[in-house]
Amino acid sequence: MRSTLEILQAAKQATASLCLLTTDKKNAALEAMASALLGAANNILAANAQDVEASRARLGEVMVDRLTLTSARIEGMAQGIRALIDLPDPVGRVIDSHTREDGLRIEKIGVPMGVVAIIYESRPNVTSDAAALALKSGNVCVLRGGKEAYRSAAAIVKAMKSGLRTVGLDENLIQLVEDTTRESATTLMEAVGYVDLLIPRGGAGLIRTCVERAKVPVIQTGTGICHVYVDASADYDMALSILENAKTSRPSVCNACEVCLVHKDIAADFLPRLDERLATLRAENGKPAVTFRCDAASLSLMPHGMAAGADDFDTEFLDYILAVRVVDDVQAAIEHIAAHSTGHSEAIISRDEEAITRFTTAVDSAAVYVNASTRFTDGGELGLGCEMGISTQKLHARGPMGLCELTTYKYVIRGKGHVR
Amino acid sequence: MRSTLEILQAAKQATASLCLLTTDKKNAALEAMASALLGAANNILAANAQDVEASRARLGEVMVDRLTLTSARIEGMAQGIRALIDLPDPVGRVIDSHTREDGLRIEKIGVPMGVVAIIYESRPNVTSDAAALALKSGNVCVLRGGKEAYRSAAAIVKAMKSGLRTVGLDENLIQLVEDTTRESATTLMEAVGYVDLLIPRGGAGLIRTCVERAKVPVIQTGTGICHVYVDASADYDMALSILENAKTSRPSVCNACEVCLVHKDIAADFLPRLDERLATLRAENGKPAVTFRCDAASLSLMPHGMAAGADDFDTEFLDYILAVRVVDDVQAAIEHIAAHSTGHSEAIISRDEEAITRFTTAVDSAAVYVNASTRFTDGGELGLGCEMGISTQKLHARGPMGLCELTTYKYVIRGKGHVR
Repeated sequence: MRSTLEILQAAKQATASLCLLTTDKKNAALEAMASALLGAANNILAANAQDVEASRARLGEVMVDRLTLTSARIEGMAQGIRALIDLPDPVGRVIDSHTREDGLRIEKIGVPMGVVAIIYESRPNVTSDAAALALKSGNVCVLRGGKEAYRSAAAIVKAMKSGLRTVGLDENLIQLVEDTTRESATTLMEAVGYVDLLIPRGGAGLIRTCVERAKVPVIQTGTGICHVYVDASADYDMALSILENAKTSRPSVCNACEVCLVHKDIAADFLPRLDERLATLRAENGKPAVTFRCDAASLSLMPHGMAAGADDFDTEFLDYILAVRVVDDVQAAIEHIAAHSTGHSEAIISRDEEAITRFTTAVDSAAVYVNASTRFTDGGELGLGCEMGISTQKLHARGPMGLCELTTYKYVIRGKGHVR
Repeated sequence: MRSTLEILQAAKQATASLCLLTTDKKNAALEAMASALLGAANNILAANAQDVEASRARLGEVMVDRLTLTSARIEGMAQGIRALIDLPDPVGRVIDSHTREDGLRIEKIGVPMGVVAIIYESRPNVTSDAAALALKSGNVCVLRGGKEAYRSAAAIVKAMKSGLRTVGLDENLIQLVEDTTRESATTLMEAVGYVDLLIPRGGAGLIRTCVERAKVPVIQTGTGICHVYVDASADYDMALSILENAKTSRPSVCNACEVCLVHKDIAADFLPRLDERLATLRAENGKPAVTFRCDAASLSLMPHGMAAGADDFDTEFLDYILAVRVVDDVQAAIEHIAAHSTGHSEAIISRDEEAITRFTTAVDSAAVYVNASTRFTDGGELGLGCEMGISTQKLHARGPMGLCELTTYKYVIRGKGHVR
């Protein structure tokens, strides 16, 4: 087994060749990686079957589903890699430029971070997604997946490295951490001088540990306690449709709505309709019904509601559960969000421009929606074409992180003997 | 004395009012802060005299000079604040926008970080600079200056707060940490949920401590081991003029050159001229002469050279000292820089476009110069108009940090009932 330090040293050394690659070469590598992945599908499925077999007893059904690969999922991973080929290369893009009166030419140019480390859990597709995003953005990746998915990750990485070799590239551009104990994660968090950016992708515990312990730069991703505020001026049908979409279209994801705040003037009118739409009608149509965790004011208005517990306004349910609270006005909604949000995505449903402007100005989250579902917080939906995760921090990147967010910049300044 | 936690709570609370301020209001506040500073000049000078008196025995001459205020310096501080009035407001700027085919409108908008904490040392002007930059960029600042400058900082902050009051603003927008023990610095570093960005400004020790210990987002500033590489194709006169400027125009600053790398083919020709220009001629003209710390190959070529010690290629001299090394070619220069640079500023002096492209592509520093002095790495010189410090990290901001670099962004997305 190679030590994590050896892997980091090899990664750092490989950055030198990567910054000189042309866009065409990187795209050829992506195509070769996708082909190699498909070519190795049987090996990958066999390795994955071993992972699943070894974990079945310990993991719940949802986790086993996340871990399990199929031919269709491998096909999807290859498509994910190929989708990056057509996206613009973020390396070398001129972000800004000007020439001073004295002739000094200043350009601000997009460049790779260097070594990007990703600590993730059991989903094998993160292995190929992260490697491909890193390559296109000119970064060497150090992948540290979960122990339960190690065989799958190793088979995927082996295939991608063979893809790199077919186009004559250094297979050190993709690094898989071989030690899956806690120690290797700690090594990555403390690898000052080796890791230029650490991205934890997974549960709240992993992310908190990285933020608290890391000495290298981290981007915090993921947790989403997303709010929808229904203003007194809201169109009820629109509000109901947005809430149903934000809560039920995919409850397990971070951009799903967890909390509904309703203006007091419409609570008696609106909340019974919300209950009917998300619980009664869905049940009648054979869809999973939503249950509600209600504050005192909303409880009596919602037949499918139960009294909210102490933590219900601070919980990412990731389930068919919605916390509901009646608020005095848009300002009270803003204050509730400031106190309880994770800074991911929040929405206002309103026809009152003053309330809308107040909400979009004062709510301090990565994405603030007006009359739209929180579910659009996604790299593809927002026009980035892809994503490495959704940042809930303010430094460097906020919201979906695409290729540009995986780069930094440098100033390149040309003179003719200019001195100051 | 207010505790640091109380100060952080007041700062966080004050962010809510700041994000709603118009540009005009912020500019009026800056003008009022500058006027109040000038109006309080006598109080500030008296407080500063006490600081200087108390520290004179303990501090060296350079430190006493840094700490000492004069009427002219206070005038300069007021001018520094007023200079921000004409700069564009980074808050609310539309960084990117598009409307999807389905009508969903996506805007990426510049917004404040929230609370920006600055830990600095003895220069009193940092107090007013940082407060003014934070205000214009919509941030509440928490200032934690050095113990030896506390009376000066308190007098400056008192004046600026009175300025805020004259235009009807909350004086909590500017916070001075009252505890000047190490404990308050630690509190700031660990204030997750209160501090959105921590900027250490000072010596290498302070910066290292912040990077290693902070749990809040940090931007590393300052240390500059800057290199000038003289290629075989260089114009000698240009190289000499750039090296003299980069080394001697202000040796105490972070963008001064500390190391000269010379291509082996011209070493015998060029290095004696460099010695003459920076040592002999300067001495003859009554200017401080440069001394050289030479590798084996350059030592015999430089009459004012001495053999370099083990650390001389990893030292920020901040003095009339230049380390000199002969390298095989541009690739060897790139590798030396990769091993020894702090990622601040490096220059190539060359007429060979291939060597230039190789250097600008492969050197991974905030600013890479072609035929120009490293001394231009400065917010004013590069067109940012001002600066909070020079970032030597890659996350978020690189090089000089102006007003935009003190902001983050959010997506504001408007629909008409859009669901996914």
